[in-house]
Amino acid sequence: MTTLYGAVDSVLPALTELLGERLSTASAVREHHGHDESGFKTVPPDAVAFANSTEEVSAIVKICARHKIPVIAYGTGTAIEGHVQALRGGVCIDLSGMDRIVEVNPEDMDCTVQAGVTRMQLESHLRDTGLFFPVDPGADASLGGMAATSASGTNAVRYGTMKENVLSLKVVMADGRIIRTGTRAKKSSAGYDLTHLFIGSEGTLGIITEVTLRLHGLQEAISSAVCSFPSVDDAINMVILTIQSGIPIARIELLDGLMMHAINRYSKMDYPEQPHLFLEFHGSAASVKEQAEAVQELASEFGGGNFSWATRSEERNRLWKARHDAYPSALQLQPGTRAITTDVCVPISRLAECIRETRADIDRASMPIVMLGHVGDGNFHLAILPHPDRPEDIEEAEALNHRLVRRALALDGTCSGEHGIGQGKIGFLEEQNPEGVVLMRQLKQTLDPDNLLNPGKVLRMD
Amino acid sequence: MTTLYGAVDSVLPALTELLGERLSTASAVREHHGHDESGFKTVPPDAVAFANSTEEVSAIVKICARHKIPVIAYGTGTAIEGHVQALRGGVCIDLSGMDRIVEVNPEDMDCTVQAGVTRMQLESHLRDTGLFFPVDPGADASLGGMAATSASGTNAVRYGTMKENVLSLKVVMADGRIIRTGTRAKKSSAGYDLTHLFIGSEGTLGIITEVTLRLHGLQEAISSAVCSFPSVDDAINMVILTIQSGIPIARIELLDGLMMHAINRYSKMDYPEQPHLFLEFHGSAASVKEQAEAVQELASEFGGGNFSWATRSEERNRLWKARHDAYPSALQLQPGTRAITTDVCVPISRLAECIRETRADIDRASMPIVMLGHVGDGNFHLAILPHPDRPEDIEEAEALNHRLVRRALALDGTCSGEHGIGQGKIGFLEEQNPEGVVLMRQLKQTLDPDNLLNPGKVLRMD
Repeated sequence: MTTLYGAVDSVLPALTELLGERLSTASAVREHHGHDESGFKTVPPDAVAFANSTEEVSAIVKICARHKIPVIAYGTGTAIEGHVQALRGGVCIDLSGMDRIVEVNPEDMDCTVQAGVTRMQLESHLRDTGLFFPVDPGADASLGGMAATSASGTNAVRYGTMKENVLSLKVVMADGRIIRTGTRAKKSSAGYDLTHLFIGSEGTLGIITEVTLRLHGLQEAISSAVCSFPSVDDAINMVILTIQSGIPIARIELLDGLMMHAINRYSKMDYPEQPHLFLEFHGSAASVKEQAEAVQELASEFGGGNFSWATRSEERNRLWKARHDAYPSALQLQPGTRAITTDVCVPISRLAECIRETRADIDRASMPIVMLGHVGDGNFHLAILPHPDRPEDIEEAEALNHRLVRRALALDGTCSGEHGIGQGKIGFLEEQNPEGVVLMRQLKQTLDPDNLLNPGKVLRMD
Repeated sequence: MTTLYGAVDSVLPALTELLGERLSTASAVREHHGHDESGFKTVPPDAVAFANSTEEVSAIVKICARHKIPVIAYGTGTAIEGHVQALRGGVCIDLSGMDRIVEVNPEDMDCTVQAGVTRMQLESHLRDTGLFFPVDPGADASLGGMAATSASGTNAVRYGTMKENVLSLKVVMADGRIIRTGTRAKKSSAGYDLTHLFIGSEGTLGIITEVTLRLHGLQEAISSAVCSFPSVDDAINMVILTIQSGIPIARIELLDGLMMHAINRYSKMDYPEQPHLFLEFHGSAASVKEQAEAVQELASEFGGGNFSWATRSEERNRLWKARHDAYPSALQLQPGTRAITTDVCVPISRLAECIRETRADIDRASMPIVMLGHVGDGNFHLAILPHPDRPEDIEEAEALNHRLVRRALALDGTCSGEHGIGQGKIGFLEEQNPEGVVLMRQLKQTLDPDNLLNPGKVLRMD
C-alpha cells in the first residue's frame, strides 16, 4: 500500500483550535521530537501536539486521519532503534503530559496509569505501599512507551517483561476509536488477546494512552551483590548453572571489563575492570540467605571472587543506578558518538556459544565495543561505538551486528529481546520470520489501512 | 460476511486420496466429533480427517479452502462451551494422532510437542527430568487445545496460564500457509506478538499444530493440604488474605459443601461435607514449612480447621485427582444431565462480594448447583445441573449465569477466566467489550475472510 500523505497545513487550524498553545511547530520542539537515543538521524515531525487525555489523542488522530497525516506517539524519546523519527512527516503526539496515576489497587496488586507516567514516577508513588513494578529498562521510560516496545530489563528473569505484567490497555485506533483491551481480572480467555496485540506494536497499530499493570509485593529481604570473574566465559557458565539449578534469582547481569571501566568513570566507582555479574536476591530472610550461599558456591567453581554485598537500600540503589546508567557510561568512551546497540536473545543452553563467537568478533573490531546483558534470560547487548568522524566505522558496526543476529537466529534465538524493531531491525525481522512478517503486514493493513500510525517502523509497508 | 459454503462432496475425493482410511464419514465417528463435554447439542461434521502432521493439516485446509468448506480442529473434545460442534457443517480435523513429543530441552527448560499430545502424556514423559508443565485443566486435554482455549487450572495462581507458558506455536492459516509465531528465546520484542494472537482464538484464526512450552523446575518440597471452613465466606476471606500477604502459594482451590458431597461419592473420599480449601505449597523444605505455618495461622482466624496434610506423592495425587474429577463428580448429582458451567473471574478484592451475591442466587435456585474455583486468581465456577426432563431448568440456569456475568462485569471482571467463549458466551463477550469485539471481527475477517475456521464460535460473523 502506498499512501499519498496530506500536507500538514491541512490539519494545523483544527489542531490549534483543539490544543491552543499545546500545538507547536517551533523548530526546536520539532527537532527534539525527531530522534530517540539511537544513532539514527533526526527526522523532525511537522508539528508536535501535547495531549492531556485519551479523548484528546482520539480527536488529534481523527483530524489527522481525515487528511491522511501520519501520527507518531512520543513518550520520553528513550528508545534506541529509531522509533520516533517522522520518516513520512506528520504530527508527533507527545504523551508526557498524560502523567496521572489513575488508580492503585493495593488489594488486587494492580494499578492503572496514563501512558506518560514514567517508571521512576510510579516507583516513587508506590513507596510505602509494599508493592513495586518490576520492569526496568535502563532509561526512565514512560509506561506507555514500555508497553509499546515490549520492554523488559534486569528483573525480567524473575518477574517477566511487559508482556507478563500488563493486564489491560486503553488504545486509540487509527480512526480515532477508543478501545479497552482487557479488564482487571488476573486471567481471561474472553476472545482474542487484544492486550498482547498492542504490546510491542511500537505505535504502529494504535496509540496506547492508559496501562493497567500487575504489581508485585516487595519481599521481606533483598540483597544485592557484585562479583568479578576471570573471563566472560566463566561468568556466563556460572549464570547458566544458576538458572538451570532453579535458584529464583531476581537479577543476574553481565558486564564485561570495558563496560566496568566505563561505569567506574561515569559513576565514580572503583570496581576491578574485569567481567562482573551484578546479582540480586529477593525472598524471606531465610530464602535470600539460602540463595546467596548457593550462588556463591557456584561462583567459586568458575573463579568468581570479590563478592561485595549491598543490603541497605541506599547501597543497592547506588549499585543499580550504575548498572542502569550503562548506556550513557558507554557513550563517554567515544565522546561525540551515538552507539549502535545489539539486542539478541537466545536459549540459555546456546548462550555460551553465542557469546564466545561474538567475543572473537569484538576482538577483531576497530572500535570500542562494550558487552552487557540480562544473561539469565539469554539476552545480551553490545554497544558499538563508532568514531564520530569515521563513517566507515558505522558500516563495520552494522556488519558486526548483522553477523550477531544471524548467529542468534541459527541458535533459535531472536534479533530483538527487548529493544523492539523500530527502523533499525526491519530487515532482521524479515530474516527471522518471513512468513510471520506477511501475517504482521496483514494485521497492520487491517488496523491502519492508510499507514498513518508511525509509518516506516517495524514493517516495510510501501 | 455471509459465506456460501460448498458441499462436502466436492472435497471428499481429494481428502480420501490424501488420507485413505484416515478420512471417515461413518456416522458414529461424526457423532463423536460433534460435541464436547458441555450441554450444547451435538452437531456432527460432514467428515472427520485424522491428520498426522502439520503438512497434512495444511493440505486438508487448502483442499477445503478451495471449495469453501469449514474446518474444525479437534483435540480431545473436552471443552465445555460448545467449541467443536460443526455449526456450518464441514470437515473436523482430529489432531489426536499428532501425539509426538518433538523435543525436550532440559537445559533451557522448554519443550516442543505436537498439538495432540495431552497434558498427562507430557507429565509422564517429563518424569525423572526434574521438570514439569504446570497448566492443568481438569480434563486430560491436548496441549494444542489448551493453547487454543487459553486454558489454565489449579497452578495458575503461581505459574500462570497458557498465556504465560507458551513460547511459540506452529499454526496452519485459513489458506493453508504454515507459520511459526516465535522462537525458543525466553523474551522477544521482535515485531507483533503472533503467539498471543492464536492463544485463545479457539481454532477461529488458525489451527495450532505444534506448541513450544516453558517448563518449570520441580521444587525440592511439595506439600498439599485440605482444610474445612464454616462457610464459603470464611474460606474466601482467608484466600484473599493469603494472596495479599504475598505467600507464593502454588494452589488454593475452593470447593463448596455440595461439591465436597459429590467428590466424596465419586472419588470415595470421606471429607466433611462443608466448604473446603485444597492447598499446595512448593519450595525448599524450609520455605514450604514457612508457607504452611503462615497459612495455617491465617486459616485459624477464619475458623478453618481439620487440616489434613499430604506430602507423599501418591497421597497428593489422590487428592488432586479428586479435585480434577470435580466435573464428572458434579454430573452424578443429577444423572443424565449435562451441566451449564460458569467461569467468571474478578479482581480478588471484589471476590467476596461477587460470591456472596452468587450464593444468594444459588440458594434461590430450583436445581442443584455446585461451586468450585481457582479462587487465588479470583476465578470460580458453578456447575448448574438442570433436570434432564425439565427444559424450564435450562432457562433458569441460563438466567442465573447471565446475572453472574453481569455481576462480574460490574466488578471489572471477565465473563470467561479459562473456558473460552465457544458458542456459549458470544453474547457475554459482546456485553463485556463491544468495541473490542469490533476489532476482533476485523482480525477474523482479515485472517479468515471466508469464515471457514470453526465458524459460529467466539464471534458472530454472519
